[in-house]
Amino acid sequence: MKVLVIGGDGYCGWATALYLSNKGYQVGILDSLVRRYWDLQLKAETLTPIAPIEKRLECWKGETGKSIELFLGDITNYDFLLGALKKFEPDTIVHFGEQRSAPFSMIDREHAVMTQVNNVVGTLNILYAMKEHFPDCHLVKLGTMGEYGTPNIDIEEGYITIEHNGRTDTLPYPKQPGSYYHLSKVHDTHNIQFACKIWGLRATDLNQGIVYGVLTDETKMHETLINRLDYDGVFGTALNRFCIQAAVGHPLTVYGTGGQTRGFLDIRDTVRCMELAIANPAEPGQLRVFNQFTEMFSIEELALKVKDAATAMGLKVEINNLDNPRFELEEHYFNAKNTKLIDLGLEPHNLSDSLIDSLLNFAIRYKDRVDESQILPKVSWHRK
Amino acid sequence: MKVLVIGGDGYCGWATALYLSNKGYQVGILDSLVRRYWDLQLKAETLTPIAPIEKRLECWKGETGKSIELFLGDITNYDFLLGALKKFEPDTIVHFGEQRSAPFSMIDREHAVMTQVNNVVGTLNILYAMKEHFPDCHLVKLGTMGEYGTPNIDIEEGYITIEHNGRTDTLPYPKQPGSYYHLSKVHDTHNIQFACKIWGLRATDLNQGIVYGVLTDETKMHETLINRLDYDGVFGTALNRFCIQAAVGHPLTVYGTGGQTRGFLDIRDTVRCMELAIANPAEPGQLRVFNQFTEMFSIEELALKVKDAATAMGLKVEINNLDNPRFELEEHYFNAKNTKLIDLGLEPHNLSDSLIDSLLNFAIRYKDRVDESQILPKVSWHRK
Repeated sequence: MKVLVIGGDGYCGWATALYLSNKGYQVGILDSLVRRYWDLQLKAETLTPIAPIEKRLECWKGETGKSIELFLGDITNYDFLLGALKKFEPDTIVHFGEQRSAPFSMIDREHAVMTQVNNVVGTLNILYAMKEHFPDCHLVKLGTMGEYGTPNIDIEEGYITIEHNGRTDTLPYPKQPGSYYHLSKVHDTHNIQFACKIWGLRATDLNQGIVYGVLTDETKMHETLINRLDYDGVFGTALNRFCIQAAVGHPLTVYGTGGQTRGFLDIRDTVRCMELAIANPAEPGQLRVFNQFTEMFSIEELALKVKDAATAMGLKVEINNLDNPRFELEEHYFNAKNTKLIDLGLEPHNLSDSLIDSLLNFAIRYKDRVDESQILPKVSWHRK
Repeated sequence: MKVLVIGGDGYCGWATALYLSNKGYQVGILDSLVRRYWDLQLKAETLTPIAPIEKRLECWKGETGKSIELFLGDITNYDFLLGALKKFEPDTIVHFGEQRSAPFSMIDREHAVMTQVNNVVGTLNILYAMKEHFPDCHLVKLGTMGEYGTPNIDIEEGYITIEHNGRTDTLPYPKQPGSYYHLSKVHDTHNIQFACKIWGLRATDLNQGIVYGVLTDETKMHETLINRLDYDGVFGTALNRFCIQAAVGHPLTVYGTGGQTRGFLDIRDTVRCMELAIANPAEPGQLRVFNQFTEMFSIEELALKVKDAATAMGLKVEINNLDNPRFELEEHYFNAKNTKLIDLGLEPHNLSDSLIDSLLNFAIRYKDRVDESQILPKVSWHRK
């Protein structure tokens, strides 16, 4: 089984590529490296010193004897994409190759436009390449739980059966995304749904929650294989960011009251979910949607968990409730379903004190690399 | 009240600009003229000999004494857009400035990508310009009934109240658009909804049905003011296309069984709906959605109406049920609500035999301009 991981140099993509390679899949990585370029532009660095992609792959070969083929380029360039696909001939395309930061998309008009064009055109190109040359290939696409927003009813997995005026239909679940980035994922979902329907393509949309953690069995084999860990106000996500803040003695940055509830998962579950989706492909003509998270927490709960664990380790931790730079409900109903991946065999790693301990220790190990000026959020959703 | 009509050189835009000008609004037209360029590329021409925009505006000035200011350029160019807005200072922006043909968007990958990028980026630029400089301006945006697809439940106006597992919320109506063009409108809707919410902008989304007719009180004042009337397989829409086909003795091109039911309206109602939306603006922070059509017909019903009227005029008419080039249900439930514009005062022109007669006579008048090679659909939704 040949799997091409688009965006395979990123946080989820790198962990997934190595995991699948280790499991015996024949893996290729396609990446433009633009994520590293955005770090340079933002003058931000991952906490962890990540190696260049070619060094990463050499090291992986040395550690395991397994080769991962590399395609360097941008999927918004159709000729490049098609060339890579024809050379690699994937059975499955895993698509992580999008701009994935909500704050990045909200910096200004240029970043909003770039995010939507980049993400939508990249995915359209993949769909057309599949239609023209790989109609049986299975697309496993990274969506986000953020597509749903925070409706006052239970969140189902992609579709909802609605009874209305005495009639019933099962329709795409209504979407209320909260940034131009999240909107780009909603646009993708609609485009993929349509392409599957008219061309008989098969696709799985993984609406992923917020991922935490850094080590997987593979990335911990050697320091050169280390994964990125973002803590800056633009690309850093809750929990990872909190642990790094605790490690350097920076107050934990909770936006608003912290009552915002979200789905979360361990990166070791991300890679397993990818495998489950790949091993159990969608049917032709179908966009199947899985909600990919294992637990729900409020941001305040997470901050308190990190504070408790850090305090037990002798660290002093404050929690700072900042003015919320985002526009979002801070107290709301949130109940999302996530049974489909469990039904396929996912055995979740629950967030535990020991995981937080190990993340904290990991953060302490690299804390001299932290640039505190990058921690506070600088991008606002508000008009002025 | 100053109204800038973006796309004011097109079919709906031209009729709207003149109607509003006649009603005493101070009207500007912003247009890139790319719609005329697409005609050249397709080697297709409108049935009616439309005058260049500057001649149109001169003629309008001569007939009525009213000036319409012209801004020639593309809204995907933000600097141009901003310059025009700052010069004109609109109270309302009417946005018709999008690629509006489903078949055009389905020609190939390039046309799909161009349609989505053009439409989404143009609308994002308008939203950012409003946020930065015209936060009180009212955006009246042309959507389409095609955003909804053909769900098996009643179609509401933009939002639906859903009861689910004992809880209730009013959410965006689920969308199942049927082409990359229709998808671009769904993307726009989500983007506008978000911009209104976070920036307090005001917008009205007009989900328009299929427009028929050509003459309005204004465009019939002088032949130089004549509106476009498309009959080709790419830009021609049902009814207008059928009348022209009947006039030249070409069989009416019904796709599949013709059981597809859609909402329709007279172009004289389109312009009135625009006025109603402008005169009764949305509240700040709100994307208001109106379904803009007056009657529902199946395509087969329409073809039979045209056939009957044409036969009464002595024309010989055949109906051809072609293999459907599109991917759509041909027999389906369809019941869409359209009370909001009626509540604001719309008094619909119902489709009558006399309207069909006058359209037929109009088509006969220009029938020597018809290029029959342009009539049949050449763009397919299908994989092969």
